[in-house]
Amino acid sequence: MTIRALVWGENIHEHTSAAVGRLYPDGMHATIAAALREDAGIEANTATLQEPEHGLTEGRLDVTDVLLWWGHAAHAEVADTVVERLADRVWEGMGLIVLHSGHFSKIFKRLMGTPCSLRWREAGERERLWVIDRGHPIAQGLPDRIEIQSTEMYGEPFTVPEPEATLFISWYEGGEVFRSGLTWRRGAGRIFYFAPGHETYPIYHQPEIRQVLRNAVRWAHNPAPRQTGIAHAPNVPIAGAPEKLQPKGARLHADGADGLR
Amino acid sequence: MTIRALVWGENIHEHTSAAVGRLYPDGMHATIAAALREDAGIEANTATLQEPEHGLTEGRLDVTDVLLWWGHAAHAEVADTVVERLADRVWEGMGLIVLHSGHFSKIFKRLMGTPCSLRWREAGERERLWVIDRGHPIAQGLPDRIEIQSTEMYGEPFTVPEPEATLFISWYEGGEVFRSGLTWRRGAGRIFYFAPGHETYPIYHQPEIRQVLRNAVRWAHNPAPRQTGIAHAPNVPIAGAPEKLQPKGARLHADGADGLR
Amino acid sequence: MTIRALVWGENIHEHTSAAVGRLYPDGMHATIAAALREDAGIEANTATLQEPEHGLTEGRLDVTDVLLWWGHAAHAEVADTVVERLADRVWEGMGLIVLHSGHFSKIFKRLMGTPCSLRWREAGERERLWVIDRGHPIAQGLPDRIEIQSTEMYGEPFTVPEPEATLFISWYEGGEVFRSGLTWRRGAGRIFYFAPGHETYPIYHQPEIRQVLRNAVRWAHNPAPRQTGIAHAPNVPIAGAPEKLQPKGARLHADGADGLR
Amino acid sequence: MTIRALVWGENIHEHTSAAVGRLYPDGMHATIAAALREDAGIEANTATLQEPEHGLTEGRLDVTDVLLWWGHAAHAEVADTVVERLADRVWEGMGLIVLHSGHFSKIFKRLMGTPCSLRWREAGERERLWVIDRGHPIAQGLPDRIEIQSTEMYGEPFTVPEPEATLFISWYEGGEVFRSGLTWRRGAGRIFYFAPGHETYPIYHQPEIRQVLRNAVRWAHNPAPRQTGIAHAPNVPIAGAPEKLQPKGARLHADGADGLR
Repeated sequence: MTIRALVWGENIHEHTSAAVGRLYPDGMHATIAAALREDAGIEANTATLQEPEHGLTEGRLDVTDVLLWWGHAAHAEVADTVVERLADRVWEGMGLIVLHSGHFSKIFKRLMGTPCSLRWREAGERERLWVIDRGHPIAQGLPDRIEIQSTEMYGEPFTVPEPEATLFISWYEGGEVFRSGLTWRRGAGRIFYFAPGHETYPIYHQPEIRQVLRNAVRWAHNPAPRQTGIAHAPNVPIAGAPEKLQPKGARLHADGADGLR
Repeated sequence: MTIRALVWGENIHEHTSAAVGRLYPDGMHATIAAALREDAGIEANTATLQEPEHGLTEGRLDVTDVLLWWGHAAHAEVADTVVERLADRVWEGMGLIVLHSGHFSKIFKRLMGTPCSLRWREAGERERLWVIDRGHPIAQGLPDRIEIQSTEMYGEPFTVPEPEATLFISWYEGGEVFRSGLTWRRGAGRIFYFAPGHETYPIYHQPEIRQVLRNAVRWAHNPAPRQTGIAHAPNVPIAGAPEKLQPKGARLHADGADGLR
Repeated sequence: MTIRALVWGENIHEHTSAAVGRLYPDGMHATIAAALREDAGIEANTATLQEPEHGLTEGRLDVTDVLLWWGHAAHAEVADTVVERLADRVWEGMGLIVLHSGHFSKIFKRLMGTPCSLRWREAGERERLWVIDRGHPIAQGLPDRIEIQSTEMYGEPFTVPEPEATLFISWYEGGEVFRSGLTWRRGAGRIFYFAPGHETYPIYHQPEIRQVLRNAVRWAHNPAPRQTGIAHAPNVPIAGAPEKLQPKGARLHADGADGLR
Repeated sequence: MTIRALVWGENIHEHTSAAVGRLYPDGMHATIAAALREDAGIEANTATLQEPEHGLTEGRLDVTDVLLWWGHAAHAEVADTVVERLADRVWEGMGLIVLHSGHFSKIFKRLMGTPCSLRWREAGERERLWVIDRGHPIAQGLPDRIEIQSTEMYGEPFTVPEPEATLFISWYEGGEVFRSGLTWRRGAGRIFYFAPGHETYPIYHQPEIRQVLRNAVRWAHNPAPRQTGIAHAPNVPIAGAPEKLQPKGARLHADGADGLR
């Protein structure tokens, strides 16, 4: 079964910073999509902030199994209606991979329910990601650690909920640490946050990083049928109770009425 | 140390339903606050939807250790700015106890990042809460199960994130089950969801339920200093790195500049 | 890729109880293995307590991806060396599915680190399993609830560690509840506990139960390479440190020496 | 309420290594106990491997709220019966703080159900513990990081179950990282693993480390009544079911009989 990935790129710094433009002449989203296509079982497309509805229409999401998110300079420009649409789809089973500065994206904060803050420093220092859980699908084919020659430092505390799995922890030349690969579930959706990817360094050209992205798409793909209705709160009629019931006491709701919300 | 609890009541059905008004003539919030005051170490006040800023001003929250939330008919009327203020305060360490139909309150959904949906039926049936984790602070002084003679059924699936602790699971006369007491942490804040409390039945007059509420206030109280700044993302200057750093590579941010968010 | 499942049966009550023998004339393990074989992608074999090393030799486990465990009357007769072998293999990535009275098996208690106790009653009452997490792989193809006409009651508190996922919760005719489907990870191994399966009732002949078993085998299968060495504690030589180190201070261990354990 | 802490020391290297003896002339346990006594609310006593039953008799544990464990060279010499006694007491509510090389102690492995392995290097390098969860009780009064001038490196992967809370992550001069402060619950017992404490360096003389130990004792103390019987599996008589039951079907057990285990 082919997995349909959609790589969303903010697509700004590629045009406003010469350094970024040189590294990612077709946009970071294009480079990430190309990394995914190295797995024949993944079909990768792209969407950007500038498209109508940011390229994230209902129709587009209907044919998306896993969404990857890279944004940094324009989190506030992402429309709230699109964010709610994405949250709905994640709950229904779409995978979500949030990259680097996406920790402050609306969709990630929406799904975490926490500040998602961290400490940071842009000094081009070295980063070393240690693989914490070597038997996890996202860690397959990786060495015991990944070295990145120049990175932006992201330091703890990273204010997210305790994760389902801690997959990577980073060591930085400047002395900090960071939980750089974490997973959560929200509804039927699997979420992976992966810290590397500052736009002024060629991180998404690095083979091990590309391997992580491919592994993560496979892991985040939930082949279960779309859980439509997961956000509904159905009124179970008294006659439909599994055990026979004799109603009693005062009631606010007529049988079959919608609930208050 | 006295714990300062604030009981928030939507305060609508007490006035629009005769049955509710009879059970809670001074409002459900008043009954809940009275339950808390049976613990001499808890100082309980109340606030309602109808007050300016719903009674949840910055000043009020500054003197609140634990907030209890009961709402049902008017979730949508709670101002978003107040909801964000509450979320900030929870992250900084304020405890939050969400009751019954508050599963669909804005603040609970905001902190969970999931639909918080469930199935329901209003038939006055019996409910039995089993205590799952008898050594937990919230379970102290309770029997091994709590019987409620008339309740609204809340049935699984309850679409919340996997909790930190599963404290109560309910059995219903009509054949359903529900995880009726769950805890999470978000930032420095401790959150407890407790399902019982439909307004047409005298549930908050029941001694064991009142015991749970008092226990929960004590558990949710985080005596740590308020974690102001938990949502900030400070730029650590290069000169302030724990290890001496020689910066290299392209940069987007000047030293000490604010980050993008 | 074919998944190699091994169904372990204690194989006692089938011979000592006429009622059990009638329901499972070839042994419960045979019935469970037949259920698995309804999935063409699963190759199912069996082993029993009475075989040398209980049929769980190193060689046998080397060709096992997922082990299913049914035991009740003779937990104490399982050799400790075999239990340690199983624990090692789970940590290295073998899936483990523990059924019914296996909650008190040595291997389950070994991996949980808790009493794994529960309350019980044998009255042939009805049980209804509610599916809590409908998007989970183990829940695929199931209705929203499974009805069992006659069951042994297993009641909370079930003293296990908080699970990774709560998949099923049971309602009992007699008034109890139970978390009847739970998952954990231990090392690279995925563990699923599934409560139904008392030997005096035809539970493993029921189609939905068989579906759960097949789903669970697929979920528990970890295709990652066997994590040999996961229990080792290697001494990293100073010359092999990722960053150049100048040793200092007193030492207990020679370079390259084994650690104490 | 005074918390009764018991500091268990293996008490070997203090006598066989001159370096260790100089740092801890009265034994490491004595130094740790002195650190605890700086909190007037903690009453700290000590026990050692060499005492009868390693100083961990039933009577001793009956008056112990929190046990701290330091062992390294003689894990295998701790009697299995004592280990089982400790596990029982943790499940019943005794707090347990496992220090440094205690990751390979019998009691820690028993409660985790995993290998508890890690990588290590003894080079006297620097370690920096970052506080991940600043609002947690164990982090109170601490700076945002703790610097240790000479340490033994403990590196990931640390093969423990995903924790309830990740409190500290360490950065090492040699390039590794480690989750150096983690919590779990097992039954009614709270467990904290804290990595610092190699015996050839004066780590337990360092004020911030001593603060962590005191905080941890307060956090690990569960004031709930001892959960005796938590490992029992009572047969609930049919007449004692919360709902009236008509038994049916074949039975293996007489009413009120003990279960098989």
